[in-house]
Amino acid sequence: MLKLFEYNWQVRKDWFAWCQDVSEEDLPKKRTGGVGGILHTLFHIADVEFSWISDLQGKREFTEPFEDYANLQKVTDLSARFHEEVRPFVMSWTNEMESKELSELTSAGEPVNFKYGEIMRHVIAHEIHHIGQLSVWSREVGKAPITANLIRRGLF
Amino acid sequence: MLKLFEYNWQVRKDWFAWCQDVSEEDLPKKRTGGVGGILHTLFHIADVEFSWISDLQGKREFTEPFEDYANLQKVTDLSARFHEEVRPFVMSWTNEMESKELSELTSAGEPVNFKYGEIMRHVIAHEIHHIGQLSVWSREVGKAPITANLIRRGLF
Repeated sequence: MLKLFEYNWQVRKDWFAWCQDVSEEDLPKKRTGGVGGILHTLFHIADVEFSWISDLQGKREFTEPFEDYANLQKVTDLSARFHEEVRPFVMSWTNEMESKELSELTSAGEPVNFKYGEIMRHVIAHEIHHIGQLSVWSREVGKAPITANLIRRGLF
Repeated sequence: MLKLFEYNWQVRKDWFAWCQDVSEEDLPKKRTGGVGGILHTLFHIADVEFSWISDLQGKREFTEPFEDYANLQKVTDLSARFHEEVRPFVMSWTNEMESKELSELTSAGEPVNFKYGEIMRHVIAHEIHHIGQLSVWSREVGKAPITANLIRRGLF
């Protein structure tokens, strides 16, 4: 579990560095699919990871809109700030936490239960999926994407 | 580990069903990013999963080109055939296999070692990443993508 989080964090860091060479118009530009743009995707990834892991810790979710963070420095800083709160929880994960239950309410007000292990894997898959979208849009910008390879990253 | 494979297999099956309603021109059509098309991506995902897991079992990789499988039925059948060989290995995964070593040669002929656990996570991330690309291209075709959510799939 931990290795896949470390992979995501490394890839996200690489994408923030990648963004440094992209024009200020291209990063927030509206695009087809996903949440609709490169910078908005990075914001969304950081938001979703933080909000779910806050839920697992009984802390408040993040609810501020992308519009308040629509430049590269702000999203980079937000992601770094969230990382400081997310990382200790992920690093202290144990197998016993797998089957703990999180109770939420759906938007219709219905109770719904999730296993902690289910939420953790959801968060992992969520980031990788959205990064896949960045890899398409990177070609529209005319730049090669960050490699998605998990091997050869020094993680093992 | 197993849950993320099950997630990928379920999502892949959903995408094959999704393809049924897409025109025969749109599926192989060349697109920006990734391996360059919807059908080619599904072929590539099945190929990479099968080839790495064959490596871990000391079996031969798959080396046939996409061009020999460039229609929906052929890729669906290939993925199903590969699944029969991949699934027993994944289902019998144990923690002791994590640190087993796979020795490969790079394209330059240099020896390189991977941990079995590293390869398994690489395969998981590889599929999720490429499915993220499909989710962008699906909008180009005018169809909603398959949900990438891992929660609410009955996996836990």
